[in-house]
Amino acid sequence: MEDRSDIYDVLIIGGGPAGLTASLYASRSKLKAVILDKSPTAGALAYSHKIENYPGLTSPVSGKELLDTMKRQAIGFGAEYRETQVVGLNLSGDIKEVFTMDKTYKGKTIIIATGSMGRKPSIKGEGEFLGKGVSYCAICDAAFFRGKTVCIIGNSEETIKEAGVLARFAEMVYLISPAKKLNVDDHPGLKIPNIKVLLGYTVSAIEGKDVVERIKMLDSDHKEVELNLSGVFVYLHGNKPITDFLAGTIETGEDGCIQVNCMMETSIPGVLAAGDVTCTEIRQVVVAASQGCIAALAAEKYLYKRTRYRMDWAK
Amino acid sequence: MEDRSDIYDVLIIGGGPAGLTASLYASRSKLKAVILDKSPTAGALAYSHKIENYPGLTSPVSGKELLDTMKRQAIGFGAEYRETQVVGLNLSGDIKEVFTMDKTYKGKTIIIATGSMGRKPSIKGEGEFLGKGVSYCAICDAAFFRGKTVCIIGNSEETIKEAGVLARFAEMVYLISPAKKLNVDDHPGLKIPNIKVLLGYTVSAIEGKDVVERIKMLDSDHKEVELNLSGVFVYLHGNKPITDFLAGTIETGEDGCIQVNCMMETSIPGVLAAGDVTCTEIRQVVVAASQGCIAALAAEKYLYKRTRYRMDWAK
Repeated sequence: MEDRSDIYDVLIIGGGPAGLTASLYASRSKLKAVILDKSPTAGALAYSHKIENYPGLTSPVSGKELLDTMKRQAIGFGAEYRETQVVGLNLSGDIKEVFTMDKTYKGKTIIIATGSMGRKPSIKGEGEFLGKGVSYCAICDAAFFRGKTVCIIGNSEETIKEAGVLARFAEMVYLISPAKKLNVDDHPGLKIPNIKVLLGYTVSAIEGKDVVERIKMLDSDHKEVELNLSGVFVYLHGNKPITDFLAGTIETGEDGCIQVNCMMETSIPGVLAAGDVTCTEIRQVVVAASQGCIAALAAEKYLYKRTRYRMDWAK
Repeated sequence: MEDRSDIYDVLIIGGGPAGLTASLYASRSKLKAVILDKSPTAGALAYSHKIENYPGLTSPVSGKELLDTMKRQAIGFGAEYRETQVVGLNLSGDIKEVFTMDKTYKGKTIIIATGSMGRKPSIKGEGEFLGKGVSYCAICDAAFFRGKTVCIIGNSEETIKEAGVLARFAEMVYLISPAKKLNVDDHPGLKIPNIKVLLGYTVSAIEGKDVVERIKMLDSDHKEVELNLSGVFVYLHGNKPITDFLAGTIETGEDGCIQVNCMMETSIPGVLAAGDVTCTEIRQVVVAASQGCIAALAAEKYLYKRTRYRMDWAK
C-alpha cells in the first residue's frame, strides 16, 4: 500500500508574494503545505529595492524584506519551506507529482506561482545548444562540468550564488555581467578564487560543433572577444511567465502564461495558479498576494468539495 | 460653462481596505481622488480586534491600526479624505454625482467600496416607520429631533460617537445595546449628561400612529419595557452588502451585492466596485485590497481609454 503520510495537501511552486500568501492561507486552514522556492533572492519582488505602494506598509521596505516577513508569517502558521528547483511535473493522476533534483514531492493539489521573469532564448546559439552545454540551472547541471571551464551570465545575487555552486565542480567560472556593476556590493561568492568576474560584456554568440566550445562577447567598446569553454549558464531575466517546466501539461495562453478563472483554477482540477505566472497584466504585489489567497481557498474547496464559495464571485 | 476644477477623476465611496487601496493606487497614478468615508471606526476591518493573516504584517495589529496605515499611505500619495455619509447617487451622465449631507461631489469615475455590514429592517415596525422617526444616519437627521427624546441602538464606537451628535439636538438620547457590554471601554461620548446607556436590552417593536411614538424592549430577563420617544436610530450591523444608497441605479445580485467582472467593472461604464460590497464570498482583507487596486487601474484605463490591460486577464 502506498504510504500517504508524505503526501501534501498543497504543493506550492514559487516563493514570491503569490506563493507565500497561498502557503499562509493554506497552513492557516490546517492544510499540510510546502513551498518549493528556487531562490529567495530571485524574482520580481526580490529584485525590488523599494516598495511603498503595498497597502499596509508603515514605511517603504525592500522587496526582500517584504518577502521575508511573508515567509515568516507562513512558516509561523505551519507551512514548510524548501529551497529547491522544480524540474518537472506529473499532473495526470489524482495525486500530483513535482520533481526536483533531489526528491519527488506528492500533493493532492498544486499551486503554481513561479512569476514572470522568464525569457525566450535570445543569444545566438542559446536554443540550439540547450542541453548541450547551455543550461538554466546550475544546481541541476553543475556536476556535468567537473574540471571544465564554464560561464554564468547575469548580475543578480542569485547569479553570484549559483556561480559558487558551479565553482565547486568547474575549474574556472566566468561570471559575465552585461551591466558594468553587479547588483550586489559584497558577497562571499565574489571571493572564490576560481570565479572571475567580467563586467560590461555582452555575450553575442554561443558556438561549437555538437556541444558548446566557445562564446563570443562584445566588450563595452563593442570589440569582439572569444572565450573557450564548455558550459554556459544563463541567469538573465525577462518578463515572460515562467512555465517552461510545465512542458505542455496545462493550457497556457500567448507568451506561455497560465489561463485561470476568477478562482485561480487552471484547466486541470486541483491545479491552481496565482500571481504573475497567470495571464494577468496587473503585476502588483497586492494582486499577486490576493490571488495566492484565493488559490489556497480554492485548493481547500477542492480538497473538501466545499460549495460555500460561489464560483461566480467575480465573473 | 461648467466649472470643471471641482470634478474628481475618481470618487471613492468607503474607507475600508478596498476603498483605501483604490485611493492609494489612483493617487499614485496622479489621478485626483477623494475617499468619502462614513466613519473610520465602522466596518468589518475597523471592528476586528486582531489581524494576523494579512500578508506582510510583521506582527498582529488591530483592524483600526491597519486601516490607519493604509489611510496614511493614500493621503501621503495625494488622496483626499472626507468623513461624510453618502445619501444618494446620480450615475446617468458622463460626470457622476455623489450626494452627501453637505455637498455634491462630481467625478468622472466612481469606485463603490462600502463593504458588507448592512442589514435588512428586522425590528417590528422598523421598515414601516423608516423616514417617520426611524433613521440610519444621525448626522443626516439629528436636527429633526431638536428638544425630543430619541434612542440609538448598537454597541460600537461609531454608535457612541453618533449618540454624541444626537445629544447636541435631542433632549435625551437612550443608547440601547443588546449586548451587556459596549465595544469600547471608555469614550468621551459616555460622559455626555443627556446620553443614558441601557445595556442588555433588545428592542422588539417600534410603534406609533403616523410617526414613531414609542419602542418596546425586552430586558435580560425577557421582561417587556416601554419607552416613549420620537426617534429611533439603528446602528446594528449585519452581513449584507451596503448598497441601499444605490436605489437601483446599478445591477445587483441576490442580497443586493454588486455584480462585477474581473476588472471590477459594474454594468455602468466608469462605475467600479471593490471589496465585500461585490458578489464575493471571499471576505479577506488582502482580496478587498487587491480589488481596490484593480478598480483604480480600471478607472485609470477608463479615463485614458488605455488598452494595455487585457480585459480577460483572469477570466
